[in-house]
Amino acid sequence: MALVDLPRPDIEAGLESAHRAYEEFAARGLSLDITRGKPGSDQLDLSADLLTAVTAENYRAPDGTDTRNYGGLDGLLELREMFGELFSVPASQLLAQGNSSLTLMSQALVFASLFGTADEDSVPWASGPRRILCPVPGYDRHFGLAEALGFELVTVPQDDEGPDMDAVRALTAEDPSVKGIWIVPMYSNPTGITVSEARAKELLDLETAAPDFRILWDNAYGLHHLREPHAALLDILGLAAASSRPDRVWMFASTSKITLPGAGVAFFAASPRDTDWFRKHLSPTSIGPDKVNQLRHLHFFGTPDGVRAHMEKHAALVLPKFEAVERILAEELGDLGIATWTAPNGGYFITLTVLPGTADRVVKLAAEAGVKLTPAGATHPYGLDPDNAVIRIAPTMPSLDEVEQAARGLAACVRLAAHEALLARDS
Amino acid sequence: MALVDLPRPDIEAGLESAHRAYEEFAARGLSLDITRGKPGSDQLDLSADLLTAVTAENYRAPDGTDTRNYGGLDGLLELREMFGELFSVPASQLLAQGNSSLTLMSQALVFASLFGTADEDSVPWASGPRRILCPVPGYDRHFGLAEALGFELVTVPQDDEGPDMDAVRALTAEDPSVKGIWIVPMYSNPTGITVSEARAKELLDLETAAPDFRILWDNAYGLHHLREPHAALLDILGLAAASSRPDRVWMFASTSKITLPGAGVAFFAASPRDTDWFRKHLSPTSIGPDKVNQLRHLHFFGTPDGVRAHMEKHAALVLPKFEAVERILAEELGDLGIATWTAPNGGYFITLTVLPGTADRVVKLAAEAGVKLTPAGATHPYGLDPDNAVIRIAPTMPSLDEVEQAARGLAACVRLAAHEALLARDS
Repeated sequence: MALVDLPRPDIEAGLESAHRAYEEFAARGLSLDITRGKPGSDQLDLSADLLTAVTAENYRAPDGTDTRNYGGLDGLLELREMFGELFSVPASQLLAQGNSSLTLMSQALVFASLFGTADEDSVPWASGPRRILCPVPGYDRHFGLAEALGFELVTVPQDDEGPDMDAVRALTAEDPSVKGIWIVPMYSNPTGITVSEARAKELLDLETAAPDFRILWDNAYGLHHLREPHAALLDILGLAAASSRPDRVWMFASTSKITLPGAGVAFFAASPRDTDWFRKHLSPTSIGPDKVNQLRHLHFFGTPDGVRAHMEKHAALVLPKFEAVERILAEELGDLGIATWTAPNGGYFITLTVLPGTADRVVKLAAEAGVKLTPAGATHPYGLDPDNAVIRIAPTMPSLDEVEQAARGLAACVRLAAHEALLARDS
Repeated sequence: MALVDLPRPDIEAGLESAHRAYEEFAARGLSLDITRGKPGSDQLDLSADLLTAVTAENYRAPDGTDTRNYGGLDGLLELREMFGELFSVPASQLLAQGNSSLTLMSQALVFASLFGTADEDSVPWASGPRRILCPVPGYDRHFGLAEALGFELVTVPQDDEGPDMDAVRALTAEDPSVKGIWIVPMYSNPTGITVSEARAKELLDLETAAPDFRILWDNAYGLHHLREPHAALLDILGLAAASSRPDRVWMFASTSKITLPGAGVAFFAASPRDTDWFRKHLSPTSIGPDKVNQLRHLHFFGTPDGVRAHMEKHAALVLPKFEAVERILAEELGDLGIATWTAPNGGYFITLTVLPGTADRVVKLAAEAGVKLTPAGATHPYGLDPDNAVIRIAPTMPSLDEVEQAARGLAACVRLAAHEALLARDS
């Protein structure tokens, strides 16, 4: 029976039991961190050979380029071909850059803010009010970046196929200050949903008051399958080219969670016109990316299939952690009706939805018991989750044993906070 | 006797001879490139061990940081300490970032453009007209970056100690839109001059109408001595701290011409307050730089003295090329009074000043004979050298033999263009 339906004395008894479980957990004096989507060191070890994949004997790219010297703003052609195949993007529309896709997103937004987009009617976005749509729960760094650049963050609900299009339509139809929408199209951070082709087409066909509306398509987890069925990677630039809005998509991706987060390669892709626009504004700011590191990636993977095989090794390390969290949450919370959680087939996160009003209490209890979680609300614009219910779990970084302990402790916190809230409500 | 003083028939005879020399040179069908300050491959070979200086066995920083994972926005502390010593900057005020100091300059200017500086009275620079002082001859990418960001470029003459302060004072005293000045303080690109301490202090003490005036101190060649006497590296942030304008300097540097141009480490430094300002605006755009590559540099050099010893190896390879250019120009042009050239004690460039009005003709003649030079005017804002006289020579990239051939050919072009011009003038 759901906790909420129990008679008060039973809840009171439950509180006592939940308190005991929590105290026992806290007494262990653990120090666990499941805040950020950082790969575990076992995952980083998978890329050990990347570190030495370019030596004094093989520093030339297949086309003869000495990768050690200046030049080559677009990045190494052969690496762009490799990841172009993986992301369904022609190499001519894919730029391989530095170690951070977040930096590329910031550059695209800065270029639009200072110069406007390549659209005929575009003026510099910073010359007036600007808003960006934020499907929730979403990625805190997306929201923080846009906020820092002066965008007002506008919350949009989403379902299993992507953002709620009625809400999107209502917000974009009349307001030319709504300049874009954040989308994590596959195994979304943090809910794990994947945008359907139908929804993507609706976003492409959307009539917007802004002539320069953009979909910020951050395919951060496009290759990060954990189990079957694998989500399908959309040919989003092909769909855009076939739509009436061929320039609407700016795509981002990186190898941060494929090879090494500190030392990967980030990618920008767009229509031919918008790729030219990005390159034009990038050009004064850089003589070119770190081609040596790009060549390392090329040597390390060899082929697109090399990347795919590498991602299977990641899944073999990561999936048991996701399964452990799911199993323990089911054991501890399964029949109480006080929490639901996602079981994504890929990506880096589990979203735990607790009794409304208790997420911040859960996070606080967990912190006091030695389990660090992302602050409640972080999945929402301005850190404000109106339901105070969403918690993001990042199970990759700790060991499997630590993940199990953290999940068990987290469940105790959820139970305790729920009991407290139900009794407070009824008193 | 100087060419200009010869009687016309002698100049006519000289033209014929110059023509023959040029045609002979052109007939060789060379293809040489002395346009950009790119290290030669022998210089890149000096850093061969850098490529494999981080392996699966030694990827942790001295403080235990796993450099492969996310985090550490400031860059590796130990590398900042190493280069902090070399550049006279406390490590706490030195940020180690990606592969490009040009990118850091663009970020500093973008942050100021969108948000204003940390000064109390600063408003976003992009909210109004903005100008930047450009001592000439200077670095074309400095000018291009500022122009792309909407700055009007204002030419300032310079002498052997730095920018002409009367001109600087006249331009900055009344006009609050003058926001900064480009300075390459050591072995300047392209003239090789080094800013004196007295001149630096004048720049620090300058009364400006703009409350947020900045010296963009690009110490790109701060460690790049070629021969004695070595120029002294100024403790510019210490001088600023002791002045009435402690926040006036933004310093930039990189290892692009120390290790590998494509795969080096770039640095930003400023006062504590402005370092905080830069970090605050950088933070939303990046989770951190490539720490693996920073650790490579730390391992490769070991100590600041390791860097100094490495720079001596560069000098041993580069100095003969500079000496060859100087020797050949002296042989070919020494007594004609149609050209002067710099003989810098460090850096990457020789500035050749030809008969006014002939620089573009020299560049064109050289290109047609197979020697690619930076376009005439590139050393000036908007590519416009009012005297049409300055040519930048970058002798590092080609082999010594090629440099000698290029210098010989270039001298033939200078002679031919001068004869043509003198005869056209007199006719």
